[in-house]
Amino acid sequence: MLHANPVTAGPAPATREGPAAARHTGDVEILETLELGSSSVILRRAEATDLPAIVDLIAADQLGATRDGVNTAEDLAAYQAAFTAIDRDPAHLLMVAQSGPDIVATMQLSFLPGLARRGALRAQIEAVRVQAAYRNRGLGAAMFTWAINESRRRHCALVQLTTDKSRTTAHRFYERLGFAASHEGMKLSLRETGP
Amino acid sequence: MLHANPVTAGPAPATREGPAAARHTGDVEILETLELGSSSVILRRAEATDLPAIVDLIAADQLGATRDGVNTAEDLAAYQAAFTAIDRDPAHLLMVAQSGPDIVATMQLSFLPGLARRGALRAQIEAVRVQAAYRNRGLGAAMFTWAINESRRRHCALVQLTTDKSRTTAHRFYERLGFAASHEGMKLSLRETGP
Repeated sequence: MLHANPVTAGPAPATREGPAAARHTGDVEILETLELGSSSVILRRAEATDLPAIVDLIAADQLGATRDGVNTAEDLAAYQAAFTAIDRDPAHLLMVAQSGPDIVATMQLSFLPGLARRGALRAQIEAVRVQAAYRNRGLGAAMFTWAINESRRRHCALVQLTTDKSRTTAHRFYERLGFAASHEGMKLSLRETGP
Repeated sequence: MLHANPVTAGPAPATREGPAAARHTGDVEILETLELGSSSVILRRAEATDLPAIVDLIAADQLGATRDGVNTAEDLAAYQAAFTAIDRDPAHLLMVAQSGPDIVATMQLSFLPGLARRGALRAQIEAVRVQAAYRNRGLGAAMFTWAINESRRRHCALVQLTTDKSRTTAHRFYERLGFAASHEGMKLSLRETGP
Protein backbone atom coordinates (compact mmCIF):
# COMPACT_ATOMS: atom_id res chain seq x y z
CA MET A 1 0.00 0.00 0.00
CA LEU A 2 1.48 3.33 -1.01
CA HIS A 3 0.20 6.75 -0.20
CA ALA A 4 1.75 10.17 -0.10
CA ASN A 5 1.77 11.77 3.30
CA PRO A 6 0.55 15.32 2.83
CA VAL A 7 1.23 16.24 6.44
CA THR A 8 5.00 16.08 6.08
CA ALA A 9 5.18 17.72 2.65
CA GLY A 10 4.34 21.35 3.27
CA PRO A 11 4.50 24.23 0.79
CA ALA A 12 7.86 25.58 -0.36
CA PRO A 13 9.00 28.92 1.04
CA ALA A 14 7.75 31.63 -1.30
CA THR A 15 11.22 33.13 -1.60
CA ARG A 16 12.83 30.09 -3.17
CA GLU A 17 12.33 28.77 -6.70
CA GLY A 18 11.72 25.09 -6.38
CA PRO A 19 9.21 22.28 -6.45
CA ALA A 20 5.73 23.09 -5.20
CA ALA A 21 5.68 20.68 -2.32
CA ALA A 22 9.29 20.93 -1.22
CA ARG A 23 10.14 21.03 2.44
CA HIS A 24 13.62 22.06 3.50
CA THR A 25 15.34 20.49 6.46
CA GLY A 26 18.77 22.05 6.71
CA ASP A 27 20.13 21.72 3.19
CA VAL A 28 17.98 18.75 2.19
CA GLU A 29 15.09 19.49 -0.17
CA ILE A 30 12.36 16.94 0.50
CA LEU A 31 9.87 16.57 -2.36
CA GLU A 32 7.52 13.99 -0.90
CA THR A 33 7.23 11.43 1.89
CA LEU A 34 5.76 8.02 1.07
CA GLU A 35 4.71 5.03 3.14
CA LEU A 36 5.54 1.75 1.37
CA GLY A 37 4.13 -0.97 3.60
CA SER A 38 6.36 -0.87 6.68
CA SER A 39 9.00 1.42 5.11
CA SER A 40 8.93 5.19 5.00
CA VAL A 41 10.61 6.56 1.87
CA ILE A 42 11.39 10.18 1.10
CA LEU A 43 11.80 11.62 -2.37
CA ARG A 44 14.32 14.43 -2.29
CA ARG A 45 16.71 16.40 -4.42
CA ALA A 46 20.07 14.59 -4.70
CA GLU A 47 23.05 15.98 -2.79
CA ALA A 48 26.73 15.61 -3.77
CA THR A 49 27.19 13.03 -1.01
CA ASP A 50 24.61 10.77 -2.69
CA LEU A 51 26.77 10.41 -5.79
CA PRO A 52 28.44 7.04 -5.00
CA ALA A 53 25.06 5.48 -4.18
CA ILE A 54 23.49 6.84 -7.38
CA VAL A 55 26.38 5.50 -9.48
CA ASP A 56 25.94 2.11 -7.79
CA LEU A 57 22.26 2.11 -8.79
CA ILE A 58 23.16 2.98 -12.39
CA ALA A 59 25.91 0.34 -12.52
CA ALA A 60 23.62 -2.33 -11.05
CA ASP A 61 21.30 -2.00 -14.01
CA GLN A 62 21.67 -4.84 -16.51
CA LEU A 63 22.05 -2.51 -19.50
CA GLY A 64 24.39 -0.09 -17.70
CA ALA A 65 26.64 -2.72 -16.12
CA THR A 66 29.31 -2.56 -18.82
CA ARG A 67 29.20 1.21 -19.04
CA ASP A 68 29.14 2.43 -15.45
CA GLY A 69 30.84 2.17 -12.08
CA VAL A 70 33.66 3.97 -10.27
CA ASN A 71 36.87 2.05 -10.99
CA THR A 72 39.36 4.91 -11.14
CA ALA A 73 39.83 8.43 -9.81
CA GLU A 74 39.15 9.59 -13.36
CA ASP A 75 35.73 7.89 -13.30
CA LEU A 76 34.88 9.61 -10.03
CA ALA A 77 35.95 13.02 -11.39
CA ALA A 78 33.76 12.50 -14.47
CA TYR A 79 30.71 11.64 -12.35
CA GLN A 80 31.38 14.58 -10.04
CA ALA A 81 31.62 16.99 -12.99
CA ALA A 82 28.32 15.68 -14.37
CA PHE A 83 26.65 15.99 -10.96
CA THR A 84 27.79 19.61 -10.70
CA ALA A 85 26.48 20.39 -14.19
CA ILE A 86 23.07 18.90 -13.33
CA ASP A 87 22.87 20.41 -9.86
CA ARG A 88 23.72 23.99 -10.77
CA ASP A 89 21.21 24.22 -13.63
CA PRO A 90 17.59 24.80 -12.57
CA ALA A 91 16.51 23.09 -15.80
CA HIS A 92 17.53 19.77 -14.24
CA LEU A 93 16.40 18.00 -11.09
CA LEU A 94 18.20 14.87 -9.95
CA MET A 95 15.97 13.03 -7.49
CA VAL A 96 16.73 10.21 -5.06
CA ALA A 97 14.45 8.05 -2.96
CA GLN A 98 15.81 7.36 0.52
CA SER A 99 14.73 4.69 2.98
CA GLY A 100 16.49 4.94 6.34
CA PRO A 101 20.13 5.54 5.41
CA ASP A 102 19.82 3.90 1.96
CA ILE A 103 19.41 5.49 -1.46
CA VAL A 104 16.98 3.07 -3.12
CA ALA A 105 16.04 4.86 -6.36
CA THR A 106 16.99 7.75 -8.61
CA MET A 107 15.54 9.72 -11.54
CA GLN A 108 16.60 12.77 -13.54
CA LEU A 109 13.93 15.22 -14.64
CA SER A 110 14.84 17.96 -17.15
CA PHE A 111 12.76 20.90 -18.39
CA LEU A 112 13.68 21.75 -21.99
CA PRO A 113 12.62 24.86 -23.90
CA GLY A 114 11.59 24.51 -27.55
CA LEU A 115 9.59 26.34 -30.22
CA ALA A 116 7.20 23.55 -31.24
CA ARG A 117 3.74 23.35 -29.60
CA ARG A 118 3.64 27.15 -29.24
CA GLY A 119 6.96 27.43 -27.50
CA ALA A 120 6.18 24.84 -24.89
CA LEU A 121 8.55 23.49 -22.29
CA ARG A 122 8.88 19.73 -22.43
CA ALA A 123 9.79 17.60 -19.45
CA GLN A 124 12.20 14.74 -20.06
CA ILE A 125 12.88 11.83 -17.75
CA GLU A 126 16.23 10.00 -17.89
CA ALA A 127 18.25 7.60 -15.77
CA VAL A 128 15.46 6.00 -13.76
CA ARG A 129 16.76 3.25 -11.48
CA VAL A 130 15.03 1.46 -8.59
CA GLN A 131 16.92 -0.96 -6.33
CA ALA A 132 15.72 -4.54 -6.89
CA ALA A 133 14.29 -4.87 -3.35
CA TYR A 134 12.08 -1.80 -3.90
CA ARG A 135 10.52 -2.81 -7.22
CA ASN A 136 6.85 -3.71 -7.59
CA ARG A 137 6.00 -1.82 -4.41
CA GLY A 138 4.71 1.39 -5.96
CA LEU A 139 7.88 3.44 -5.53
CA GLY A 140 8.47 3.88 -9.28
CA ALA A 141 4.84 4.90 -9.83
CA ALA A 142 5.09 7.42 -6.98
CA MET A 143 8.27 8.94 -8.46
CA PHE A 144 6.65 9.25 -11.89
CA THR A 145 3.45 10.69 -10.44
CA TRP A 146 5.50 13.30 -8.63
CA ALA A 147 7.45 14.08 -11.83
CA ILE A 148 4.29 14.37 -13.93
CA ASN A 149 2.63 16.66 -11.39
CA GLU A 150 5.76 18.81 -11.20
CA SER A 151 5.86 19.00 -15.03
CA ARG A 152 2.23 20.15 -15.08
CA ARG A 153 2.99 22.73 -12.40
CA ARG A 154 5.79 24.09 -14.60
CA HIS A 155 3.36 24.31 -17.55
CA CYS A 156 5.10 21.68 -19.67
CA ALA A 157 3.12 20.57 -22.74
CA LEU A 158 4.33 17.00 -22.46
CA VAL A 159 6.51 14.56 -20.57
CA GLN A 160 8.80 12.36 -22.63
CA LEU A 161 11.27 9.54 -22.13
CA THR A 162 12.85 6.78 -24.14
CA THR A 163 13.08 3.20 -22.97
CA ASP A 164 15.12 0.36 -24.44
CA LYS A 165 12.96 -1.85 -26.66
CA SER A 166 14.04 -4.89 -24.65
CA ARG A 167 12.41 -3.54 -21.45
CA THR A 168 8.89 -4.73 -22.21
CA THR A 169 7.79 -4.70 -18.55
CA ALA A 170 8.79 -1.04 -18.36
CA HIS A 171 6.71 -0.25 -21.46
CA ARG A 172 3.56 -1.58 -19.81
CA PHE A 173 4.39 0.40 -16.66
CA TYR A 174 4.68 3.63 -18.67
CA GLU A 175 1.48 2.91 -20.58
CA ARG A 176 -0.38 2.47 -17.30
CA LEU A 177 0.86 5.94 -16.32
CA GLY A 178 -0.64 7.36 -19.54
CA PHE A 179 2.40 7.41 -21.83
CA ALA A 180 1.95 6.38 -25.47
CA ALA A 181 4.74 4.67 -27.45
CA SER A 182 4.09 7.05 -30.34
CA HIS A 183 7.70 7.63 -31.37
CA GLU A 184 10.82 5.74 -32.34
CA GLY A 185 13.70 6.51 -30.00
CA MET A 186 16.77 6.78 -32.23
CA LYS A 187 20.28 6.71 -30.75
CA LEU A 188 23.67 7.20 -32.36
CA SER A 189 26.57 6.16 -30.13
CA LEU A 190 29.69 8.31 -30.44
CA ARG A 191 31.76 6.04 -28.20
CA GLU A 192 33.01 2.50 -28.15
CA THR A 193 30.86 0.53 -25.72
CA GLY A 194 32.29 -1.98 -23.28
CA PRO A 195 34.02 -1.75 -19.93
CA MET B 1 25.47 17.71 -55.35
CA LEU B 2 26.18 18.98 -51.85
CA HIS B 3 29.54 19.80 -50.36
CA ALA B 4 30.66 21.93 -47.49
CA ASN B 5 32.86 24.82 -48.51
CA PRO B 6 35.79 24.80 -46.09
CA VAL B 7 37.14 28.10 -47.42
CA THR B 8 34.27 30.13 -46.01
CA ALA B 9 34.07 28.32 -42.67
CA GLY B 10 37.16 29.41 -40.77
CA PRO B 11 38.02 28.60 -37.15
CA ALA B 12 36.13 30.30 -34.34
CA PRO B 13 37.94 33.08 -32.47
CA ALA B 14 39.74 31.49 -29.53
CA THR B 15 38.17 33.94 -27.10
CA ARG B 16 34.61 32.87 -27.79
CA GLU B 17 32.91 29.69 -26.66
CA GLY B 18 31.10 28.36 -29.67
CA PRO B 19 31.02 25.87 -32.47
CA ALA B 20 34.40 24.83 -33.85
CA ALA B 21 33.88 26.05 -37.37
CA ALA B 22 31.87 29.19 -36.66
CA ARG B 23 32.60 32.36 -38.57
CA HIS B 24 31.17 35.62 -37.28
CA THR B 25 29.97 38.33 -39.64
CA GLY B 26 28.65 41.13 -37.52
CA ASP B 27 26.30 39.40 -35.11
CA VAL B 28 25.57 36.41 -37.34
CA GLU B 29 27.25 33.16 -36.34
CA ILE B 30 27.78 31.10 -39.50
CA LEU B 31 28.30 27.41 -38.81
CA GLU B 32 28.80 26.12 -42.35
CA THR B 33 28.34 27.14 -45.99
CA LEU B 34 26.92 24.56 -48.40
CA GLU B 35 26.46 24.43 -52.16
CA LEU B 36 23.20 22.68 -53.13
CA GLY B 37 23.24 22.53 -56.91
CA SER B 38 22.78 26.13 -57.97
CA SER B 39 21.86 27.41 -54.47
CA SER B 40 24.25 28.47 -51.75
CA VAL B 41 22.89 27.73 -48.26
CA ILE B 42 24.37 28.80 -44.96
CA LEU B 43 23.81 27.06 -41.65
CA ARG B 44 23.86 29.59 -38.86
CA ARG B 45 22.72 30.21 -35.32
CA ALA B 46 19.14 31.56 -35.30
CA GLU B 47 18.57 35.23 -34.47
CA ALA B 48 15.44 36.73 -32.88
CA THR B 49 14.44 38.18 -36.27
CA ASP B 50 14.24 34.62 -37.70
CA LEU B 51 11.45 33.68 -35.31
CA PRO B 52 8.42 34.25 -37.62
CA ALA B 53 10.09 32.20 -40.38
CA ILE B 54 10.94 29.37 -37.98
CA VAL B 55 7.37 29.29 -36.64
CA ASP B 56 6.10 29.14 -40.25
CA LEU B 57 8.32 26.10 -40.89
CA ILE B 58 7.02 24.40 -37.74
CA ALA B 59 3.39 25.21 -38.58
CA ALA B 60 3.80 23.96 -42.19
CA ASP B 61 4.64 20.49 -40.92
CA GLN B 62 1.74 18.06 -41.24
CA LEU B 63 1.94 16.92 -37.62
CA GLY B 64 2.45 20.45 -36.24
CA ALA B 65 -0.24 22.15 -38.32
CA THR B 66 -2.93 21.94 -35.64
CA ARG B 67 -0.56 22.92 -32.85
CA ASP B 68 1.48 25.81 -34.21
CA GLY B 69 1.27 29.20 -35.89
CA VAL B 70 1.05 32.82 -34.77
CA ASN B 71 -2.63 33.73 -34.60
CA THR B 72 -2.62 36.07 -31.63
CA ALA B 73 -0.28 38.42 -29.79
CA GLU B 74 -0.30 35.85 -27.01
CA ASP B 75 1.05 33.20 -29.43
CA LEU B 76 3.85 35.54 -30.49
CA ALA B 77 4.78 36.32 -26.90
CA ALA B 78 4.93 32.59 -26.10
CA TYR B 79 7.24 31.90 -29.04
CA GLN B 80 9.41 34.88 -28.15
CA ALA B 81 9.76 33.71 -24.55
CA ALA B 82 10.76 30.25 -25.76
CA PHE B 83 13.28 31.70 -28.20
CA THR B 84 14.86 33.73 -25.41
CA ALA B 85 15.08 30.67 -23.15
CA ILE B 86 16.81 28.67 -25.89
CA ASP B 87 19.09 31.49 -27.04
CA ARG B 88 20.43 32.52 -23.65
CA ASP B 89 21.37 28.98 -22.57
CA PRO B 90 24.63 27.63 -24.06
CA ALA B 91 23.20 24.11 -23.63
CA HIS B 92 20.92 24.81 -26.60
CA LEU B 93 21.66 25.78 -30.18
CA LEU B 94 18.82 26.74 -32.50
CA MET B 95 20.04 26.50 -36.08
CA VAL B 96 18.56 27.82 -39.32
CA ALA B 97 19.52 27.19 -42.94
CA GLN B 98 19.31 30.30 -45.10
CA SER B 99 19.22 30.52 -48.89
CA GLY B 100 19.30 34.08 -50.17
CA PRO B 101 16.82 35.92 -47.93
CA ASP B 102 14.83 32.75 -47.08
CA ILE B 103 14.94 30.56 -43.98
CA VAL B 104 14.55 27.08 -45.49
CA ALA B 105 15.22 24.76 -42.55
CA THR B 106 15.62 24.68 -38.77
CA MET B 107 16.88 22.32 -36.07
CA GLN B 108 17.39 22.51 -32.31
CA LEU B 109 20.43 20.83 -30.80
CA SER B 110 20.68 20.49 -27.01
CA PHE B 111 23.55 19.22 -24.85
CA LEU B 112 22.22 17.52 -21.73
CA PRO B 113 24.26 16.48 -18.70
CA GLY B 114 23.53 13.12 -17.07
CA LEU B 115 25.16 10.56 -14.78
CA ALA B 116 24.73 7.43 -16.95
CA ARG B 117 27.57 6.35 -19.26
CA ARG B 118 30.17 7.73 -16.83
CA GLY B 119 28.61 11.16 -16.56
CA ALA B 120 28.43 11.72 -20.30
CA LEU B 121 26.79 14.62 -22.05
CA ARG B 122 24.14 13.54 -24.51
CA ALA B 123 23.18 15.56 -27.57
CA GLN B 124 19.48 15.75 -28.38
CA ILE B 125 17.95 16.89 -31.64
CA GLU B 126 14.43 18.33 -31.71
CA ALA B 127 12.22 20.37 -34.03
CA VAL B 128 13.85 19.52 -37.37
CA ARG B 129 11.97 21.09 -40.29
CA VAL B 130 13.03 21.49 -43.93
CA GLN B 131 10.95 23.51 -46.40
CA ALA B 132 9.35 21.22 -49.01
CA ALA B 133 11.35 22.72 -51.92
CA TYR B 134 14.62 21.91 -50.13
CA ARG B 135 13.95 18.25 -49.32
CA ASN B 136 15.82 15.39 -51.00
CA ARG B 137 18.70 17.70 -51.90
CA GLY B 138 21.11 16.83 -49.11
CA LEU B 139 20.30 19.76 -46.83
CA GLY B 140 18.89 17.60 -44.02
CA ALA B 141 21.89 15.26 -44.18
CA ALA B 142 24.27 18.24 -44.07
CA MET B 143 22.50 19.65 -41.00
CA PHE B 144 22.67 16.31 -39.22
CA THR B 145 26.30 15.77 -40.18
CA TRP B 146 27.13 19.18 -38.75
CA ALA B 147 25.17 18.39 -35.56
CA ILE B 148 26.85 14.99 -35.12
CA ASN B 149 30.32 16.47 -35.63
CA GLU B 150 29.56 19.26 -33.16
CA SER B 151 28.32 16.66 -30.62
CA ARG B 152 31.55 14.70 -31.03
CA ARG B 153 33.57 17.90 -30.59
CA ARG B 154 31.72 18.54 -27.31
CA HIS B 155 32.55 14.97 -26.17
CA CYS B 156 28.97 13.74 -26.12
CA ALA B 157 28.60 9.96 -25.69
CA LEU B 158 25.59 9.81 -27.98
CA VAL B 159 23.16 11.74 -30.13
CA GLN B 160 19.47 11.04 -29.63
CA LEU B 161 16.15 12.04 -31.10
CA THR B 162 12.61 10.75 -31.28
CA THR B 163 10.60 10.59 -34.46
CA ASP B 164 6.88 9.94 -34.87
CA LYS B 165 6.25 6.30 -35.81
CA SER B 166 4.26 7.45 -38.85
CA ARG B 167 7.33 9.13 -40.42
CA THR B 168 8.80 6.00 -41.99
CA THR B 169 10.82 7.89 -44.60
CA ALA B 170 12.49 9.82 -41.79
CA HIS B 171 13.38 6.55 -40.01
CA ARG B 172 15.32 5.32 -43.06
CA PHE B 173 17.04 8.70 -43.30
CA TYR B 174 18.19 8.48 -39.67
CA GLU B 175 19.33 4.89 -40.07
CA ARG B 176 21.47 5.90 -43.07
CA LEU B 177 23.12 8.47 -40.78
CA GLY B 178 23.97 5.68 -38.31
CA PHE B 179 21.10 6.00 -35.81
CA ALA B 180 19.53 2.81 -34.44
CA ALA B 181 15.83 2.62 -33.50
CA SER B 182 16.80 0.91 -30.24
CA HIS B 183 14.27 2.63 -27.97
CA GLU B 184 10.58 3.32 -27.66
CA GLY B 185 9.87 7.05 -27.58
CA MET B 186 7.13 7.47 -24.97
CA LYS B 187 5.14 10.72 -24.73
CA LEU B 188 2.54 11.86 -22.25
CA SER B 189 0.62 14.93 -23.37
CA LEU B 190 -0.32 17.37 -20.61
CA ARG B 191 -2.44 19.55 -22.90
CA GLU B 192 -5.55 19.26 -24.97
CA THR B 193 -4.47 18.94 -28.61
CA GLY B 194 -6.26 20.75 -31.42
CA PRO B 195 -6.20 24.25 -32.90
